Amino acid sequence: MIRTLVREIQKKQAPIVVGLDPMLDYIPSHLKKAAFAEAGETLEGAALAVWEYNKALLDAVSEFVPAVKPQIAMYEQFGIPGLEAFKKTVDYAKEKGLVVIGDIKRGDIGSTSAAYAVGHIGRTQIGESRISAFGEDFVTVNPYLGSDGVLPFVKVCKEENKGIFVLVKTSNPSSGEFQDQKIGERTLYELVGEKVAQWGEECTPEGCAYSNVGAVVGATYPEQGRILRALMPKTMILVPGYGAQGGKGADLVHFFNRDGLGAIINSSRGIIAAYRQEKYASYGETGFAEAARAAVLDMKQDIAQALG
Amino acid sequence: MIRTLVREIQKKQAPIVVGLDPMLDYIPSHLKKAAFAEAGETLEGAALAVWEYNKALLDAVSEFVPAVKPQIAMYEQFGIPGLEAFKKTVDYAKEKGLVVIGDIKRGDIGSTSAAYAVGHIGRTQIGESRISAFGEDFVTVNPYLGSDGVLPFVKVCKEENKGIFVLVKTSNPSSGEFQDQKIGERTLYELVGEKVAQWGEECTPEGCAYSNVGAVVGATYPEQGRILRALMPKTMILVPGYGAQGGKGADLVHFFNRDGLGAIINSSRGIIAAYRQEKYASYGETGFAEAARAAVLDMKQDIAQALG
Repeated sequence: MIRTLVREIQKKQAPIVVGLDPMLDYIPSHLKKAAFAEAGETLEGAALAVWEYNKALLDAVSEFVPAVKPQIAMYEQFGIPGLEAFKKTVDYAKEKGLVVIGDIKRGDIGSTSAAYAVGHIGRTQIGESRISAFGEDFVTVNPYLGSDGVLPFVKVCKEENKGIFVLVKTSNPSSGEFQDQKIGERTLYELVGEKVAQWGEECTPEGCAYSNVGAVVGATYPEQGRILRALMPKTMILVPGYGAQGGKGADLVHFFNRDGLGAIINSSRGIIAAYRQEKYASYGETGFAEAARAAVLDMKQDIAQALG
Repeated sequence: MIRTLVREIQKKQAPIVVGLDPMLDYIPSHLKKAAFAEAGETLEGAALAVWEYNKALLDAVSEFVPAVKPQIAMYEQFGIPGLEAFKKTVDYAKEKGLVVIGDIKRGDIGSTSAAYAVGHIGRTQIGESRISAFGEDFVTVNPYLGSDGVLPFVKVCKEENKGIFVLVKTSNPSSGEFQDQKIGERTLYELVGEKVAQWGEECTPEGCAYSNVGAVVGATYPEQGRILRALMPKTMILVPGYGAQGGKGADLVHFFNRDGLGAIINSSRGIIAAYRQEKYASYGETGFAEAARAAVLDMKQDIAQALG
């Protein structure tokens, strides 16, 4: 799957992933009004608004970006109907030719991680049948439980040609509380980064410069990005925190390799709620999808300039 | 909610939680056969088998234990139908008067953790309505992202009188890979344990000896249990790894305070698949629920002896 992701990044000349984190606050009021009129102020009503919002966004941006990253928490908060909207979003994005990164941050002990892995990127054995439950292409994985929490995902990556991104240095303000702690000469995030590189060794497709085991490193920590880039040369880095969380184009250069590849930058709010920014206000609330498209094109230019 | 949990532990004289981790392998063949005949070898068929299994187990054990812990991965692997079975299990367990610990191991950056928190132990705001999506009483939380990944859960605990158990030292063989690393004089798990005690300070009900912020520490690491017990005197410890994972009754004494409280021991496979053990083979496959009940009573005795 990493080969597909790299190819699509190159084809679309955009190392960009659009984060589909549909908080109700971001969804334009005409969509919410219509959804609530049809299904009430219920989990079903919220899920309907989410789905209509995502569909319009996917229609607007899919030709310009290689990938989308739905954040499952934003669907899970709406219960079963919300998770149905998640699944519909995954399916629709794949129909549009996009690579889908499920931002699920799962991680557990062996047999339980295996259940998450088959459920999200593999197929679940039921009697004689093997059935795909959620069907993402990549998922994000939490490393706190160590190798035996991560390797079941790696196993499914190999079997099904899928990929993962392991949390290494996250974009949030308190990520340093544990991740930056010094263990001898190294920090915890460096130790995790080394493990990511190791897990990736056995999961690199023939002739591909990158592995199916990627890493998450926040745009908000460019210096750590530089260190981790050197430590994990064959690792694709998924970089959240650009835009609304404060990461700037110029900070991103540290996350890329000299081949101009090796990182994919996520923006969520900055794109899907672009219509709420002064810069894109002229699109109006009903023009939210066109505003998102304009924000994607601006982001593409910002990154190209920074890398140029 | 911790007050309720402590009261139920005392009332039932059983610091025991039954892990509802319904792997298809554990489910007796007559239940699978009936479910597949009705709904096919599909996600729906698997979910139906899971639900029938759980319902019989809950009917058999609910009068003897204070709590159950459904492991959401085992439902999520069956997609939307699986998560519907999870929700039905939560609701039925609550009808039976049990405290429900959702073993979800979620954790993310602030706004995203907030979505998980309201979705699982709180209520999600939809227009003017606030709606419970999954409705567990406690959930497990992964601390890798630091305070701003955990505090949104603590906030919901305070608002809704619910609780969490934060992963500190997990029961799996490779848990030490990161958790045991030395940071100065302390290990990472000790650092996380100290934070758990801090987070809990603001979340302890008046006059209660325990806080709504608990910790997960594996029965497979009794020595670390002793250290953490001392470090977090007001923290309820959820202890997985008893039985099938190798933890023994005698090891458990370290996890309890002198008041005979402070820990709740989980057993999953050892109870719900007891019928597959030689000891309970006489119940047969169709007697799986009675075997589970017998295993609960034996576990209660084993722990009482160890603490006695």
